[in-house]
Amino acid sequence: MKNKNIVFIAKSLDGYIADKNGGLDWLNTIPNPDKTDMGYNRFINRIDAIVMGRLTFDIVCSFDCEWPYTKPVFVMSNTLETVPVEYSGKVFLVKGTLEGILKDIHSQGFSQLYIDGGLVVHGFLKEDLIDELIITTFPVLLGGGIPLFGELPRQLEFEHVESTLFLNAIAQDSYLRKR
Amino acid sequence: MKNKNIVFIAKSLDGYIADKNGGLDWLNTIPNPDKTDMGYNRFINRIDAIVMGRLTFDIVCSFDCEWPYTKPVFVMSNTLETVPVEYSGKVFLVKGTLEGILKDIHSQGFSQLYIDGGLVVHGFLKEDLIDELIITTFPVLLGGGIPLFGELPRQLEFEHVESTLFLNAIAQDSYLRKR
Repeated sequence: MKNKNIVFIAKSLDGYIADKNGGLDWLNTIPNPDKTDMGYNRFINRIDAIVMGRLTFDIVCSFDCEWPYTKPVFVMSNTLETVPVEYSGKVFLVKGTLEGILKDIHSQGFSQLYIDGGLVVHGFLKEDLIDELIITTFPVLLGGGIPLFGELPRQLEFEHVESTLFLNAIAQDSYLRKR
Repeated sequence: MKNKNIVFIAKSLDGYIADKNGGLDWLNTIPNPDKTDMGYNRFINRIDAIVMGRLTFDIVCSFDCEWPYTKPVFVMSNTLETVPVEYSGKVFLVKGTLEGILKDIHSQGFSQLYIDGGLVVHGFLKEDLIDELIITTFPVLLGGGIPLFGELPRQLEFEHVESTLFLNAIAQDSYLRKR
């Protein structure tokens, strides 16, 4: 299967992935009595591995719950030397250029990659390395926070693939990079 | 009918309403052979008048076409003293606070207002004066430009009303302010 880097991320209507305090409470403002996963498990089943930055890794580690990932997680860090022992066999450190990191991961047989975390997504977009965007938009203006998108050296055109509305409130749109 | 301030605007996937050069060429990247108006005329039929800033007015005036509006246009400007004679009876100057401007426009019998232009929309949002957002998202990352949204003093929750896909490419989402 062709190598693919895919983003699956939630943003506010005004494009933030975390509020002014770095918080995610706004993700829980829409009642979800049946606990729909908004396509998350279907997405996870499609991918081979997850690529995230050190910041996102630290946030996930801080959650008071079991390790949430069923696929290998590659953490991009130029400073971490070892993975805490409880994540052994689940989390793998990678460093260097994105090109080198991808080559390394692909050589291990992982081709469908979930690219996660604001800085990492932005880094991949700057090098035009994102093939698919699945963006879930919550109906709230946060008015500030951590933006999903940032400056890019050039325009990138995408093709719209699918719109889905969850909980009668949350629009999810999928896009493929036009190449 | 209850007074309503409505935004109808196109943005890129990364939230810009004009590209890095202030340009709008990206609005023409999706082939539109049958010239669908993406709900524009249906929207214009719903509104009584248009409110825009001086910058947007200047841009519209610069277009090499006939005056495009069939409803009265109120231009917010603290410096313009008179309207060019060719716009007499079509364009009206308003100034002062948003509250005062709205009172003035409502007193003339216009209640359903199309609020247009980035700075004006942002000014209205800062004072929580927008009741409905109709946002049309083009499938391109511009990577910079004039952002639709900006800093707000507090979070504003909306209710999702409708999703429509135009030209199999352009997603339009309507939101009502939750009050």
